[in-house]
Amino acid sequence: MSETLEKFKAFLEEKNQYDHVTTLLYWDMETVTPKAGQAGHVDALTYFSTKSFEMGTSKELGEMLDTLAKPEEFEALDDTMKFIVTRMKRDMDKDKRIPKERFEAFVRAQAEAGNAWRDAKNASDYSVFAPHLRNMIEMTAEMAGYTDPGKEVYDVLLDKYEESMDSATIDRLFEDLKKELIPLVKQILAAKQPDDTKFKGNFDINAQREVQQLLLDYIGFSRESGAVGETEHPFTLNFCSKDVRISNHYHETEPLSAMFSAIHEGGHAIFEQNVNPEYDNTVAGSCNYMGVHESQSRFYENILGRNKNFWLPIYDKLGELLPQFKEISLDEFYREINHVRNSLIRTEADEVTYCFHIILRYEIEKAIFRDHVAVEDLPELWNEKMKEYLGITPGNDAEGILQDMHWSDGSFGYFPSYLLGSIYDGMFLETLEKELGSVDKLLAAGKIGEITKWLNEKIHWYGSTRVPKEVIQNVCGEEVSAEPLIRYFKKKYTEIYNL
Amino acid sequence: MSETLEKFKAFLEEKNQYDHVTTLLYWDMETVTPKAGQAGHVDALTYFSTKSFEMGTSKELGEMLDTLAKPEEFEALDDTMKFIVTRMKRDMDKDKRIPKERFEAFVRAQAEAGNAWRDAKNASDYSVFAPHLRNMIEMTAEMAGYTDPGKEVYDVLLDKYEESMDSATIDRLFEDLKKELIPLVKQILAAKQPDDTKFKGNFDINAQREVQQLLLDYIGFSRESGAVGETEHPFTLNFCSKDVRISNHYHETEPLSAMFSAIHEGGHAIFEQNVNPEYDNTVAGSCNYMGVHESQSRFYENILGRNKNFWLPIYDKLGELLPQFKEISLDEFYREINHVRNSLIRTEADEVTYCFHIILRYEIEKAIFRDHVAVEDLPELWNEKMKEYLGITPGNDAEGILQDMHWSDGSFGYFPSYLLGSIYDGMFLETLEKELGSVDKLLAAGKIGEITKWLNEKIHWYGSTRVPKEVIQNVCGEEVSAEPLIRYFKKKYTEIYNL
Repeated sequence: MSETLEKFKAFLEEKNQYDHVTTLLYWDMETVTPKAGQAGHVDALTYFSTKSFEMGTSKELGEMLDTLAKPEEFEALDDTMKFIVTRMKRDMDKDKRIPKERFEAFVRAQAEAGNAWRDAKNASDYSVFAPHLRNMIEMTAEMAGYTDPGKEVYDVLLDKYEESMDSATIDRLFEDLKKELIPLVKQILAAKQPDDTKFKGNFDINAQREVQQLLLDYIGFSRESGAVGETEHPFTLNFCSKDVRISNHYHETEPLSAMFSAIHEGGHAIFEQNVNPEYDNTVAGSCNYMGVHESQSRFYENILGRNKNFWLPIYDKLGELLPQFKEISLDEFYREINHVRNSLIRTEADEVTYCFHIILRYEIEKAIFRDHVAVEDLPELWNEKMKEYLGITPGNDAEGILQDMHWSDGSFGYFPSYLLGSIYDGMFLETLEKELGSVDKLLAAGKIGEITKWLNEKIHWYGSTRVPKEVIQNVCGEEVSAEPLIRYFKKKYTEIYNL
Repeated sequence: MSETLEKFKAFLEEKNQYDHVTTLLYWDMETVTPKAGQAGHVDALTYFSTKSFEMGTSKELGEMLDTLAKPEEFEALDDTMKFIVTRMKRDMDKDKRIPKERFEAFVRAQAEAGNAWRDAKNASDYSVFAPHLRNMIEMTAEMAGYTDPGKEVYDVLLDKYEESMDSATIDRLFEDLKKELIPLVKQILAAKQPDDTKFKGNFDINAQREVQQLLLDYIGFSRESGAVGETEHPFTLNFCSKDVRISNHYHETEPLSAMFSAIHEGGHAIFEQNVNPEYDNTVAGSCNYMGVHESQSRFYENILGRNKNFWLPIYDKLGELLPQFKEISLDEFYREINHVRNSLIRTEADEVTYCFHIILRYEIEKAIFRDHVAVEDLPELWNEKMKEYLGITPGNDAEGILQDMHWSDGSFGYFPSYLLGSIYDGMFLETLEKELGSVDKLLAAGKIGEITKWLNEKIHWYGSTRVPKEVIQNVCGEEVSAEPLIRYFKKKYTEIYNL
């Protein structure tokens, strides 16, 4: 090993310590830290994020990367190290243009905006969040101006969360979907709806926690390399492939909510637990493409979790844990978990109308960064679009524009990833069935492990080393298209609703 | 403010960030981290502990402390800062003699020994733990040799956990106790024992969690500044007065276990939550004297928690949460929580025989560090002393020498603190009753808040700024003595057991 490579590896190991504790501080703030202790954690998070940022943009690192990028050194590296050097050099060239004090201010503002968002949502008072949102918009644009000067801000943001999927591609995919889904949803909503009476009532929270564990074990979440916490807004986070954590929120009157959140976050976690462990603690490990990531959480949540056969092997156990389910047949259950409604909350939406929740957010984000719509006008714009796509209007901002935390930490451009994930899922499903046969049959036979193994080998293993376009090309051998997803929706809901 | 003072304050703030994340890493390892993720946390813990150690022994800090200790600078400091400078200078003069790489090795060995202890206890296999224990004994002695060269190792250790209480004092107190308690316990064990049949059975774990919350709210634990986790061996830990955490362990067949652990850890937490917040994140904040600390946890657990009147205001609620308690009268409950037994496990012992569990450990620690008894001979020594003091022999090492985690992280000298705490409690109780009147009456009237307020004002507020001898002198106006505790035991158990 060259002297520079050795030094570089030691440097990465040290930088990883700072990233490790910022991850931990974040986890703890969202799952454990009491209210009065938040400020202490924000201080520490700011301090250590800044330390990591300083290391990641330091002259020392820059010189090592320059040396390792020289042909004679580069050619001697293994493939993983080649990826790491190339990727870090690219990121560093962008990030080093951010002034340290602005980065530090941004991290602190993110944490403060997160707290303000929580307070605003609890009080359903947009005015509490508005100044923080304005600040996050301005600072996010400012950061994009440093990293990618001269580029359109929203394009920079889209690329940040789903590299290789530009806004022209996203516009095309979303327009294709809209064209087909608007009439489909109209047809569905006009059809006979199932009776959901049996799903009303109070469902024991402790039993819901046990159901979550049942589901996680069933889909293949490793407890050896995983942990579970409780939070306001469910999320997944990982230190490396050996420590991946999900969090959930239990609602006494909404038993399906925590179940599908568990499957969703479990899908994210299974991805991270199965990345090549050689990539741990480097830019090759973990998956940094949010569309690809969401494709896996949503594959488990929707393609598998909303399939009747997914439940066959475990439905009796579900009834043992939550006795109300003994009174609900599997057919009734299946109908309810695919009950299409025009509803207000994204995370509670069925898989079809969910698409509109994302398209709405995508269009609002474009309105913010391209049309510069003022922050005080956003709730109205939100409500208008809810009316347009779903025919309903939020009763207050907590169930409208304040429902999601994403904008509070400046994650503008993240939302489209969810729908891209579903679009990829349509493609993955068709390929998987070509290679392994019917998913219905695999699930009914209790062979969900074979599906997970396929996803592990085709997608998870590669972590961040393949960008989304490459993932799709490698798995499906085709360009990205919304057609498979549209076919999936049409077939499934035509059957369910007798259209 | 002098330039040095300003620089010093900024330095403390930065050093605190490292201490903050080591505290968090420890909390997370004990309550959340999955098995496969432990190694990553150990790496980070070692890295950041070492960073903090380097700062705490750095030339830069040494120079600042020297400057601030000069009369002209020192006199201008406020009282808190005077304490901080004096204390840090004293500690630094000791710690700076520890070679950094030995400190680092010690931190790593502590974490590894902790994991080995857990495995050994689970398998009840002392041989798994023995090499780690030998290593911890050697390294602990090595550290004491650096910090206090020429002093007897065990005296250094005692002073580390309960400054100002030397081994001559502890020997005197423990001998006084032994003299009175050996015949008292003999009398008790010969008397009629209560029937504990109603306490057998399975008690719902989730309900036990709710009982814990009831108890914590009742004794005055602040949820705003506190959090609760689950672990193998209950403990309390704090970042500052605004973020204090306790952890607990629930046993389905032992409903009293988690209840009294909750009150015990709650007592520690109430202490930390009520230290003068001006001391936060400095050596003045938190209480570093383990005897004084245990005096507060044990005051809540025993003096209050094992008093019948403590339960009067909440006993009906207890029955609502754990229906089996509806069938148990308060008198029966009171008898059982003061049921004196010769039992194997320290943390499950009644308050009287508990004293022997500590005396046994104190004598074994003296045997290790003064008589150099070999590690392989310790289980036998343990079992002999159990036989001598309690007349029983552990069936295996998990319920013998492996039961406590303390020695796995080198906390030799900690155990006596528990009994010192009870000895102080006897004194605090007599003083409190002189000043506020009968504790029985206060508790029966639901005025536990007045007792907490008295403890807050007399003890908690001062954090680490008063050493144990000063605390006792200030609260009781007397030298430390075991007599009040002996009076308390004799009066209470003569009544209960009709002696």
